[in-house]
Amino acid sequence: MRAQANIDSHLDLRLALEQLLSAGGKRVRPTVVLLVGGMLGVDQDRLVTLGAAVEMLHTATLVHDDLIDSALLRRGMPTLNSKWSPAATVLTGDFLFARAAQLASDIDNIPLMKKFAETLAIIVNGELTQLFAAHGVISRENYYDRIYAKTASLFEMSALSAAMLNAEDEAIQDTLRIYGYEIGMAFQIVDDVLDFSGDQDVVGKPLGSDLLQGLVTLPAIFYAEEYPSDPDVQTLRQGNWQDQASMSRLVDSIRSSNAIQLSLDEAAVHVERALKALALFPISVEREALIDLARYILDRSA
Amino acid sequence: MRAQANIDSHLDLRLALEQLLSAGGKRVRPTVVLLVGGMLGVDQDRLVTLGAAVEMLHTATLVHDDLIDSALLRRGMPTLNSKWSPAATVLTGDFLFARAAQLASDIDNIPLMKKFAETLAIIVNGELTQLFAAHGVISRENYYDRIYAKTASLFEMSALSAAMLNAEDEAIQDTLRIYGYEIGMAFQIVDDVLDFSGDQDVVGKPLGSDLLQGLVTLPAIFYAEEYPSDPDVQTLRQGNWQDQASMSRLVDSIRSSNAIQLSLDEAAVHVERALKALALFPISVEREALIDLARYILDRSA
Repeated sequence: MRAQANIDSHLDLRLALEQLLSAGGKRVRPTVVLLVGGMLGVDQDRLVTLGAAVEMLHTATLVHDDLIDSALLRRGMPTLNSKWSPAATVLTGDFLFARAAQLASDIDNIPLMKKFAETLAIIVNGELTQLFAAHGVISRENYYDRIYAKTASLFEMSALSAAMLNAEDEAIQDTLRIYGYEIGMAFQIVDDVLDFSGDQDVVGKPLGSDLLQGLVTLPAIFYAEEYPSDPDVQTLRQGNWQDQASMSRLVDSIRSSNAIQLSLDEAAVHVERALKALALFPISVEREALIDLARYILDRSA
Repeated sequence: MRAQANIDSHLDLRLALEQLLSAGGKRVRPTVVLLVGGMLGVDQDRLVTLGAAVEMLHTATLVHDDLIDSALLRRGMPTLNSKWSPAATVLTGDFLFARAAQLASDIDNIPLMKKFAETLAIIVNGELTQLFAAHGVISRENYYDRIYAKTASLFEMSALSAAMLNAEDEAIQDTLRIYGYEIGMAFQIVDDVLDFSGDQDVVGKPLGSDLLQGLVTLPAIFYAEEYPSDPDVQTLRQGNWQDQASMSRLVDSIRSSNAIQLSLDEAAVHVERALKALALFPISVEREALIDLARYILDRSA
């Protein structure tokens, strides 16, 4: 065999990647892996590998996402695509996919590997759906499908796969899968609320930026359900989300309506379900930390 | 769990993918999988899954490659990127990676999964190297590293992974790995020769297109070794491969030199080594077909 795959030979790129991987991000997904696995007594080494695989997969999808969206900032740092060619950005994402797959295969667990590959397929398929079909659609069902694919699927996989490393018991696996699923749904709903209600300097992009791209998230759906005859809602429903003046007005209307609170209530329902799933486990340091993590997801909106 | 990943919901894209996957291509890699596995008596179902995984991985890398190179034709059909946005093309490649990983994990063999992920890392790392560092470099060592990463690594994996499904014996695995490696090296050398000597209508791109992109392949290396003081060689060596007049002259010089034959001789050496590896196995229909396949690789240049 010849050359080993070694990104160290691309010094500039290695530095860019180190920056990206060390630039923060909340590391919520690997935290879920470590805590769920820790609660079940899974070997620490395998958990660290799994956590790294999950974060690497997440980062790979972000790199391609930022390229697709032409985003300039991520985690407060310039995105790869803002500094590198599309070619380098595509390949860097691919390299992270490959590394994620290597890490996942290092765990030596075939069902976990299958779950890993399936989750990647769900995430990418969700992005394709968003690209081709999801603009201007005001539908709760559609929204939940989208945020499952985009976010909750990886949270679900993080909790489930950590559980798979120790629990033969499928009921335990499924309970923890539900924990991951529910906090993932809550996480994305809160993210979508922050796009309307957040401090623009903290969010780091214009408020209502989703809507201005035709992405209808939960606050907009609640508002449209309550005020179906609002002319701006009708503009959106007719697919004219490119009408900037109308969408800007709609963002303001949503911000000052109760749609924000209704959305947060919905996120809280998901967190409650997550906590209910945890209640089935005996008290432990890890369980308390998972409870805190679920609550922290809601606190981000405060 | 919510939505399943199902590309069928994107009708246009499904059609484009069906076109891409059915448009021919020589299917050399899955053929290697089926024949090597068949020779060793591996279960047919698993071989078909493995062959599909290998071809899917190959196609995923081609989709991203064509995007990076802005190529317009592949297998005589318009490339995805010539008809779709970069976003759709990036995501389609990602989707194929995910499907390839799913197929590979369906084989239920952890060492094979590791090899699969490692090979993807080698291929992508090779592309990154080509992007950042390989332009205008006249070095045989560098060339062999590049064609291993680009082509031979996947041929090697195809033969080795098929062998891994039945042979515990590491010597048998390694012998078949060598077969895959050697025909992969030969395959790429012949491809690189055809870029100079081929019929432009068949190759489907301008002759010498590699050189015009600063990619120095074996025919150019042999020529440069034999005529180091040729002014056009010096132009190339100084990194001025953007000098189109000089490079066009160089292409003509290479075509009419013995560098073409020297390169084909080199490819023949690799094929001979592949045949030598096969000679260790008893006669079988599959073994004879693998011999024919190795010879066919050379015949392409005739």
